[in-house]
This record gives sequence, structure tokens and C-alpha cells, in this order.
Amino acid sequence: MKVHVLTLFPEIFDMLKDYSIVGRAIDSEAIEIEAVNIRDFSTDKHRRVDDYPYGGGKGMVMKPEPIHSAIESCKKDNSRVIYLSPQGKIMTQSLVKELTEEEHLILLAGHYEGVDNRIIENFVDDEISIGDYVLTGGELPAMVMIDAISRLMPGVLSSEESYEIESHYEGLLEYPQYTRPRVFMGKRVPDVLLSGDHSKISLWRQLSALRTTFMKRPDMLKEMKNPKEQLNLMDSMLKLIGKR
Amino acid sequence: MKVHVLTLFPEIFDMLKDYSIVGRAIDSEAIEIEAVNIRDFSTDKHRRVDDYPYGGGKGMVMKPEPIHSAIESCKKDNSRVIYLSPQGKIMTQSLVKELTEEEHLILLAGHYEGVDNRIIENFVDDEISIGDYVLTGGELPAMVMIDAISRLMPGVLSSEESYEIESHYEGLLEYPQYTRPRVFMGKRVPDVLLSGDHSKISLWRQLSALRTTFMKRPDMLKEMKNPKEQLNLMDSMLKLIGKR
Repeated sequence: MKVHVLTLFPEIFDMLKDYSIVGRAIDSEAIEIEAVNIRDFSTDKHRRVDDYPYGGGKGMVMKPEPIHSAIESCKKDNSRVIYLSPQGKIMTQSLVKELTEEEHLILLAGHYEGVDNRIIENFVDDEISIGDYVLTGGELPAMVMIDAISRLMPGVLSSEESYEIESHYEGLLEYPQYTRPRVFMGKRVPDVLLSGDHSKISLWRQLSALRTTFMKRPDMLKEMKNPKEQLNLMDSMLKLIGKR
Repeated sequence: MKVHVLTLFPEIFDMLKDYSIVGRAIDSEAIEIEAVNIRDFSTDKHRRVDDYPYGGGKGMVMKPEPIHSAIESCKKDNSRVIYLSPQGKIMTQSLVKELTEEEHLILLAGHYEGVDNRIIENFVDDEISIGDYVLTGGELPAMVMIDAISRLMPGVLSSEESYEIESHYEGLLEYPQYTRPRVFMGKRVPDVLLSGDHSKISLWRQLSALRTTFMKRPDMLKEMKNPKEQLNLMDSMLKLIGKR
């Protein structure tokens, strides 16, 4: 996948090549990231990219022409143009999965009070927000999106890494994990994990995942993907209790 | 505010000093960021920080001792220890505001399949997630949190920049913004913004903010902070329509 990021801070994207899985995705050419400086498309002699808002008010608005030219410089027939915006629909794992199908993403990172609305209405395919909080600009959201996409690209994670049930994949949070030592600061690893009884361990993990989700994110249970599977899980739990 | 980030990728945090408002917050000492390499606290001769999970399964788990030592190395009486976790409560602007009151944050960025659960249960104050998607590690979430906090620290944004109503602050999305030229690619700026009639412009903006929110994020209207204010807004809208 090719990703162009349109930004006023192209240098900071260099960091991604040194960052964990994203760096590996770049090395293996599963994803290619190119940061494009919107300022290079300013026709102003001072290379300005913002201007006062029509209708008054404080703050500045990013001008439409440099952004439009920047989009045109990299847009192809197969491009999807995404504006990282606090007004966008909230990014979820299923949206990330959908994006991995794209051949070319153009990510527009805004600044100041926002971008001229004619760009959003006419030249952007999606507005996406990474969450309900206010950030300085769209650069970190673009990186977050790139990170989430990179790890799903074929060949990037080893089977070793991608095997485990992951948070948000199965509609439940992950079960608690433990590693050596058995006793750390007086706290013991749960006995069941040392038992060697794989069916018991598996059941403990499923129940723990359910319990963790109930405790930390009860809202996620509303959107459960396999309610039938969860019902079976509950049945197993009941059987287990019955046996005791 | 002092922020320690405990991470396996300390170098990538250098980028923040060159990034927009966060860079300015660092320059003005409104926020001080120090990345701490968890690997420096490994007692293993190979500097390993992960190990196999108890109970089996693929993937690796971050060992408790190096993380515990890293926390201890910077923890003070006034520290709040936050684990950036897909299992955490979802970050919102009100949580960000709450965090700006802290004197010292310790942000733990995890990797691999997660960290030993004894760390989470015994040495972490909060688990926070930036959204419902799966990322490579906690580094980008830590940066997102730092960005959101930085811009709220006193003196970081000029009154010019912080004056405007911002998305998620008033329970509505922002109104559309326009700047020069008046006509761009055949698309005109709305006439009302060129009218010079400030009360009309203000009303248009309020209604547009409401309309944008209805269109893009109807879920936000459920959590409206000032329903009475919104009711007044609706009344104004009705009066306006009546006048025509």
C-alpha cells in the first residue's frame, strides 16, 4: 500500500521507519509512506498556507489552493483521500480493516482552526477521527492510522505474533497474561496457569477475558460479534461450577 | 508538568520537540518529557524484557521486574502512573482536562502481547485507551495524550489560538470555516459570511455547528452539556425562520 501524508510537518514522519512493526512494514515494502509538504504548494511568496476566516473571528484557516494542489500532485484513480479531523467518524478496528483493502491512501493532516470547508466537501472521501479529544493537528492521528493498518498488512506480523486473540478482535478484551517469575513482589501467578491442564487453562482464559470486559468495558459487550459463542462460554462456565 | 514515558523506543519521542504546539510547550517548559528505556532496567545479560507466557500460547509477555524498576526510578509522591492499553477506559477531552491538573505523569507504553498482569494490578493507577483499534504499542497513544495535554497547559496556546469554540468543547462540532479566495474551483463562500452582519454570521455559525453535528456525529447530541443553551439556539432558529 502507498500512503501519502499531506502535512506542514513532513520531517516528523521519518520517525516511523524506526518504530517497531511500522518500521518493519516499511522495510518489507508492505507499506510505503511519503510525507508531502503542503507548504511546497503555496503560490504565496511567503509560502503562506493559512489566511483569515471569512465572517471574522480569531484563528486562521488553511487555504484551499495549496491543499488542492497537494492532493492533485499525488492523486490517482485508486486513491482514497482521508481528512484526519475531530469531526470525522470515529476510527474502529473494522474501519482499519476496511482501509487495508485500499491501494493508495492520501491522508490530509490539518492545522490551525481547520481547513477551508470547500476542500472537505469536494475533495475529501472520508473524515476520520481517532477519538473524542482535541489535538494540535492531524499528524499524530495519521501515524496512529498508519500503525493500525501496517500491522494488518500481509506478511508484517509473524504467525507467532498474530496468533493470539487480540483485544477488540473477538469482541472481548484480552485475558490477563503472566510471565516469570512465579512470585513477583509477593504476588503469585494464578495456579491454574501452572497446572499444565490445557483445557482448564483455556477455560480460565476465556472466562477471564469475559470478566475483564465486564469490569473494564461493559459497553463492548453490547456489540458482541458472536453472542452464540458467548452463550456457549457461559454454559461451559456453569458446567464448571456444577462440577465443583 | 513532568512526563516520564517508559518505553522500548525512547528515541522516537525526540520528534515531539519539533512538532508544532507540543514543541512550543516543551520550549516554554510548560511540559517536560523524558523517555526512559525499559531495557535499561533489565537484569538479564541479553537485556531481555520479555518472556514466555505462563499457561502456554504464542507471543511474548513483558516481564514485571524491568517495568517495576523503571517505574520506581522516576516515581514520586505526586506521580500518576498510566498504562496506555487497549483495555483502558477510552480517553475523552474531559479526561485530558483532568490530567492537566497532575504534576507528574508516568506513561507506560507496552509491547508484545502485553505486560505481566501483576504490574497492571499493583503498580498502575489508570489504564487508558485512545480508541477501539489495535496498535503496535503504547508509544503513539502516549504521544497523542501528550499532544492533547500540552495544548491545554497555561500559556501554550495564545488567546488568538484558544479563543475559538473548539470541537468537543461545547458539545457540538465546529462550524465550517472559509478563507480566501471567495470563489475556489467554482465553489463560493456562503454569502452570509461576506455580509458584515455579525449577529447574522453568529447565528449562521451556531446553526451550522448544530447541523454539522446532526449530520456527522448524532451520538454527540445525546451528551449535550447545555441542553438549555441548545434549546435557546433552536428558538433563535425558529425566530429567524419566522422573520423571513
